[in-house]
Amino acid sequence: MSGRTRRRDEQVSATREALLTAAERLFAERGMHAVGNRQISEAAGQGNNAAVSYHFGAKTDLVRAIARRHAEQIEVIRARMTARIAGSTDLRDWVACLVRPFTGHLDALGGPTWYARFTAQVMADPALRAIMVDEALVAAPVLRSFRDGLAGALAGLPPRVRRERVLMARHLVTQMCAERERALAAHAPTFHPTWDATADSLVEVIVALCEAPVR
Amino acid sequence: MSGRTRRRDEQVSATREALLTAAERLFAERGMHAVGNRQISEAAGQGNNAAVSYHFGAKTDLVRAIARRHAEQIEVIRARMTARIAGSTDLRDWVACLVRPFTGHLDALGGPTWYARFTAQVMADPALRAIMVDEALVAAPVLRSFRDGLAGALAGLPPRVRRERVLMARHLVTQMCAERERALAAHAPTFHPTWDATADSLVEVIVALCEAPVR
Repeated sequence: MSGRTRRRDEQVSATREALLTAAERLFAERGMHAVGNRQISEAAGQGNNAAVSYHFGAKTDLVRAIARRHAEQIEVIRARMTARIAGSTDLRDWVACLVRPFTGHLDALGGPTWYARFTAQVMADPALRAIMVDEALVAAPVLRSFRDGLAGALAGLPPRVRRERVLMARHLVTQMCAERERALAAHAPTFHPTWDATADSLVEVIVALCEAPVR
Repeated sequence: MSGRTRRRDEQVSATREALLTAAERLFAERGMHAVGNRQISEAAGQGNNAAVSYHFGAKTDLVRAIARRHAEQIEVIRARMTARIAGSTDLRDWVACLVRPFTGHLDALGGPTWYARFTAQVMADPALRAIMVDEALVAAPVLRSFRDGLAGALAGLPPRVRRERVLMARHLVTQMCAERERALAAHAPTFHPTWDATADSLVEVIVALCEAPVR
C-alpha cells in the first residue's frame, strides 16, 4: 500500500469515527428521529452534508455501525470475564458477567457517554430493535459460553422463568445505565458515584430477582 | 345545548377517539417517528389529512392526549387499590399497587393493546419523556397516598436506595408489558397466558428486588 493510499484510508476512518460519535451523541440528546444527516455532518465538522449517506448509506446502517462499534468492545470484556469464571456455578459470577461488560465499557469510554440512551431508544423502536439484537450476536461464541454459564447458574428455574428473568435483567441494565447517563448529562444527582458502584447495585438486585420464588 | 350542537360534539369526540386509537397503534407498530399525520388520518378513516393537526396541533400534543387518556384510567384503578390497602405496611400490597393498575388497564382494554410499546418508546425519547412524566401526575392526590404507602413499606431502605429500586420496578413493568405486547402481536410464545399472570410474576420479582441486601 502506498503512503498516499494509507493516508487516504486513515482519513476515511477518522471521518467515519467522527460521524459515528456525532450521530450517537445527537441521537441520545435529541432523539433518534429528531436528527437528520445534515446535523450529524455539521456536528462532526464535515462540510459536506452528504457525508453520512456517503459513508453509511441509510440511517439503519448508521445505527448498525454505532451498535457494532460498541458491541465489539463490550464482548471483548465479556469474553475476558467469561474465561475467568468458566466452570463457576455461582449465580453472582454470571450476573456480574451480564452487567459489568456494559457498565465497564461505558466507564472505559471516559467523560460523557451516550450509548445507554442510544440503546434504550433503539430497543424501544419497532423498526430498529432487530438491528441491535443482530449486533449483540457479533461475538456469538463468547455469547454461547456466557449463556450456558448463566443458564447453568439458573438451572433451578424452569426454562421459561429463566428466560423471563434474564430478559428482565437485561432491561434493568439498559434502563438504569440510561438513567445514569441522563442524570450525568443534566448535572442532576446520581444514585451512585461511579459506574462500578452502579454495577454493584445492579448485580445485587438482579441476583435477588433471579432468586425470587416461582409460584 | 341544542340537539344539533350535541350531535356535533359527539361527532368531534368520536373523531378524536378514532385518531388517538389509530395514532397509538401506528406509533407502537411502526415507531413514533416513522408515522406522519397523513397515515394517522387515513388509518382513522378521516378523509381530511389535516384532521390530526386540526384536532391535536403538534405531535407532542397528540402524544400527550394518548398518554392522558390512559393515565386517567390507570389512576382510577390505582385509587381503588390504594383505598383498599390504606394503612397496610405489607410490601407486597404496595408493589401490587405499582404493577396491577398498568397490567389491569391493558387487560381491561381487551384484544390487542399498544400502550405499553407506546410508553416504552416515549420514555426512551429525550424530547417526549417529559410529557409522559407530566401526564402520570394527573392524579396527584392518589399518587401521593400511593407513594407514601410504598415508601412506608420500604422504610427500611435508605431513601436513595428506595428511589432507585422504585425506578427499577417501574422500568420492569413498562418493559415487560411491552415485551408481552410484542409477543402477542407477533403470535410468538408469551411468558404467561394472561395479563394477570404477568402481573403475578412482576410482583414476585419486584418484591425480591426491593428486599435485596443493600451493600
